[in-house]
Amino acid sequence: MDNKNLEPLRHSAAHLFAAAIKNIFPEAKLAIGPAIEDGFYYDVDYGELKISENDFSKIEQKMHELVKKWGEFEKKEITADEAKKHFKDNPYKLELIEEFSKKGEKLTIYRSGEFEDLCRGGHIDNPKEALKHFKLLSVAGAYWRGSEKNKMLTRVYGTIFPTKSELENHLKVLEEAKKRDHRKLGRDLDLFVFSDLVGKGLPLLTPKGTTLKRVLERFIVDEELKREYLHVSTPPIAKVDLYRTSGHYPYYKETMYPPMIVDEEELILRPMTCPHHFALFKSRPRSYHEMPVRFAEISPQFRYEKSGELTGLIRVRTFLLSDAHIITPKEKAKEEIIKVLDLIAYVNHAFGLKKGTDYRYRLSLGDRSDSKKYYKDDKMWDYAENILREVLKNQDVPFYEAENEAAFYGPKIDVQMKNVNGKEDTAFTVQYDFVMPKRFELKFINKEGVDEEPVVVHRASLGAFERTMAFLIEHFGGAFPLWLAPVQVVILPISDKFQDFALKIKETLLKSGIRCEIDLDSKTLGAKIRHSTLQKVPYMVIIGEKEVEANKCAVRTREGKDLGQLSINELISKLKEKIENFS
Amino acid sequence: MDNKNLEPLRHSAAHLFAAAIKNIFPEAKLAIGPAIEDGFYYDVDYGELKISENDFSKIEQKMHELVKKWGEFEKKEITADEAKKHFKDNPYKLELIEEFSKKGEKLTIYRSGEFEDLCRGGHIDNPKEALKHFKLLSVAGAYWRGSEKNKMLTRVYGTIFPTKSELENHLKVLEEAKKRDHRKLGRDLDLFVFSDLVGKGLPLLTPKGTTLKRVLERFIVDEELKREYLHVSTPPIAKVDLYRTSGHYPYYKETMYPPMIVDEEELILRPMTCPHHFALFKSRPRSYHEMPVRFAEISPQFRYEKSGELTGLIRVRTFLLSDAHIITPKEKAKEEIIKVLDLIAYVNHAFGLKKGTDYRYRLSLGDRSDSKKYYKDDKMWDYAENILREVLKNQDVPFYEAENEAAFYGPKIDVQMKNVNGKEDTAFTVQYDFVMPKRFELKFINKEGVDEEPVVVHRASLGAFERTMAFLIEHFGGAFPLWLAPVQVVILPISDKFQDFALKIKETLLKSGIRCEIDLDSKTLGAKIRHSTLQKVPYMVIIGEKEVEANKCAVRTREGKDLGQLSINELISKLKEKIENFS
Repeated sequence: MDNKNLEPLRHSAAHLFAAAIKNIFPEAKLAIGPAIEDGFYYDVDYGELKISENDFSKIEQKMHELVKKWGEFEKKEITADEAKKHFKDNPYKLELIEEFSKKGEKLTIYRSGEFEDLCRGGHIDNPKEALKHFKLLSVAGAYWRGSEKNKMLTRVYGTIFPTKSELENHLKVLEEAKKRDHRKLGRDLDLFVFSDLVGKGLPLLTPKGTTLKRVLERFIVDEELKREYLHVSTPPIAKVDLYRTSGHYPYYKETMYPPMIVDEEELILRPMTCPHHFALFKSRPRSYHEMPVRFAEISPQFRYEKSGELTGLIRVRTFLLSDAHIITPKEKAKEEIIKVLDLIAYVNHAFGLKKGTDYRYRLSLGDRSDSKKYYKDDKMWDYAENILREVLKNQDVPFYEAENEAAFYGPKIDVQMKNVNGKEDTAFTVQYDFVMPKRFELKFINKEGVDEEPVVVHRASLGAFERTMAFLIEHFGGAFPLWLAPVQVVILPISDKFQDFALKIKETLLKSGIRCEIDLDSKTLGAKIRHSTLQKVPYMVIIGEKEVEANKCAVRTREGKDLGQLSINELISKLKEKIENFS
Repeated sequence: MDNKNLEPLRHSAAHLFAAAIKNIFPEAKLAIGPAIEDGFYYDVDYGELKISENDFSKIEQKMHELVKKWGEFEKKEITADEAKKHFKDNPYKLELIEEFSKKGEKLTIYRSGEFEDLCRGGHIDNPKEALKHFKLLSVAGAYWRGSEKNKMLTRVYGTIFPTKSELENHLKVLEEAKKRDHRKLGRDLDLFVFSDLVGKGLPLLTPKGTTLKRVLERFIVDEELKREYLHVSTPPIAKVDLYRTSGHYPYYKETMYPPMIVDEEELILRPMTCPHHFALFKSRPRSYHEMPVRFAEISPQFRYEKSGELTGLIRVRTFLLSDAHIITPKEKAKEEIIKVLDLIAYVNHAFGLKKGTDYRYRLSLGDRSDSKKYYKDDKMWDYAENILREVLKNQDVPFYEAENEAAFYGPKIDVQMKNVNGKEDTAFTVQYDFVMPKRFELKFINKEGVDEEPVVVHRASLGAFERTMAFLIEHFGGAFPLWLAPVQVVILPISDKFQDFALKIKETLLKSGIRCEIDLDSKTLGAKIRHSTLQKVPYMVIIGEKEVEANKCAVRTREGKDLGQLSINELISKLKEKIENFS
């Protein structure tokens, strides 16, 4: 059963929740309670009361008790005046009533058992039988209507499924996701922190988090250089005019930082890199000889995100994008897009992600009838969409199409990635752009010696570093493969006596480019192993009497597997081989 | 003779220049004409006239002609009213007169030959004999009194020396510096550009410039990691409050960008990294075990520079600093500072710069009597200055001391670097800071289990990348040593026939990590060699019939030295050895 069919069930469960709340806390003022993707929530003004997870079992019990008497939902149409009278003590419902009636909407009240709520309908037919397998999940603050100017209400999230096993499965997934939550693991594994002093949504990567970032950065830069990308370095601020030229400023103004007046110029933090790369392209004439020009950059970008929308490393106010713009003659665009998908497949392969299982392609199309949202040029849209479709048809996995998901300057291919919740997010995109070349008057001199307009392929190979790191932390549950692990080996001398030998091993590993640490604490070996296991260090090298005598290392994996004694050279070649194979 | 003694000579030459101007262009309105470090200038309002370098010989001739009749400068004191009458047609002098007389200053006029100017004095005694070895150098626009709100005047720069040979030497140095000017070489070697679209003072590094930056970045990061720095990654923006806590905001407000209101927070582009590293340090308790903590970062920073002060890559509005903050127990500070100087010496060695010749150390002290500029704590200043002095005494080269050059939070060691003009600039600094630990309440738990306040050593190892790149471009005149060269080898097939072999050589070199290009143009070999020599590519590999037959490469340096035929493996090991030795 997909989520759409669950909506009436979840909506009905929200009613039941509200009924229980009014029964237990008669003073509570209900605000709104919709079905959402994974369940439902209800925002309530509890007045002076503090609701916490400790109250959940009591509320759930009451829900089970009340539902026994619930027959079918009864619909009643009422006038605005009647509604206002009915909800006279509830300022939230009164505000909604006012709004609906202004829009000329009909008002309806739905009743089941003794509980009535202002509601547009959409319930299940058999509450008594259906509203059984639910669970309240969490509590959070939420501003009335999402605005910080309004009162903070209390939101309780819950979920419900048609069967017990579906509910249990879902709770298991949630439990697993909680353990893998990158915010929790980020703290436990000391990868990143936030600081009230620095500001919201501005992560500070610790040494270990920075190592992960550096490994990713060098990996993608080196790979792109091999594939004849030209890495460039452009400033993170620019004149607002640059984004007026690109057309981003009116479109994306809401998500951009406010402009700063600096001397006689109006500067702004960049929300994307494309106009910078176009400016570089235009800095001298270009000949067909050097086309396509593939400008890539590990590019710091800035988005104005509301504080309520910030989430760990996933929604942040500044991030680093593995960005590129391929400026190509039109006839080579298809070939270039194929190459980009190949690069993305390579990156995903390095992360151990399988095409078709872990990710799939989506062809995101425009809407010919919406010339406000999409640049109007039907022929170009047809042409570009066909090219992308052809490319996808020749991939070895199925893809799907989505209407009204394109960029304003052209259609795109989205790489849809499954996260630990089993949900799909867009991880990377490949966009076909026939608008920016016109806006920036991009040209190259073709074989005939004539100016020709190129097209631009916008793409991200590794996405935003912060988001990708969050994804990888959750995907691996913090147990990174060797090549990504911030610390690859930890050396555990059994006692002080073996410290010198252990330090020599460390030196040798460091010189071979292996990231390693040594644990010189006076803890027992058992405690050291436990600690390193919790820190998810892939390999532990244990040094005791036998190892010093044999001039070898006793090697053990974080999974507890004993690899026996290895010479230092054997260990290094074993590790290097694994690193090269991204394992 | 040092520049101070040249001042009367140069000031007098400015008078002579002005006399010639009034003689040739009677309508010209003189503004001001001081002596400066390397000569003199005079700002003049020429009205409708356009003065260019083409006018210089005529003006110089007139100067030589007029000076023949110049006796000693005659001083005349006049009242403000007399002065206003005298300069009634010159709004610039009138403005100055008004100002001087408001301050109660006495007004004086100096006359030599037929020329009189408002002047405070300070001339040579024998103009006729002394004003001989001069030269006009360049012309530029300059706002009256440096403010963009005022009229743009025309500034002519000139220089003068006591002897002909001194003048000629100076002109030779200028000529050489002009050839090495990083702005010119940046264009010629395609290293960086500026774009009107993007904004002033915001350089865009091309692929080659970015390669240079990447080589420098990986070099310094890897070296710092070896030296147990912890590289971290903190956001380029933060709450203004962070800089209020550090005390930077009032001190450096003028050089900071304006704050941006984002949601409920007041954010600002960071002018330095230290407070970010302190926030990270404070994110969890620290024990003496892990001290000193050496946080390093390749850190984007932002400075509000007036457009008139922007200069190529040297003065920019955003830059990347190789920054670090060593948070150390006080008793280890000295040891840490010695280690920093060792790192800086290593970096300079890699650049081929010699201690004592190319750079020297300056101990920059505070001023105990200026408690507005310097944090007041005489004992701490004494202590810190002594530590730095002791460190410098134990270096193997002499150092010098400079009063009133410290940071507000403590004394520092400046690494003073000679540039191509022979002038000294501060390239890197090592600062001892006993103030920030208090402001940020930095602490660690010492061996006794008690909170202890550390000190902070601020340092830059490689400086600001942009400035360092500018320095290196000028220092090497664009002919970078192999390890830094954006393109290390260019492969020149003599004709199309040898293209396949040449491409194979390229592949092999690329796989070995050698940065190489291939010139497949249909030019003659001579033309290809000329082009690569102009582009200052260290090695050229020429592929013709003989090379294909022998399966070898004919290798030639950019200096024109023929290294004969080498096998590809011989070539690679030769290059790798050179790269490892920074040559």
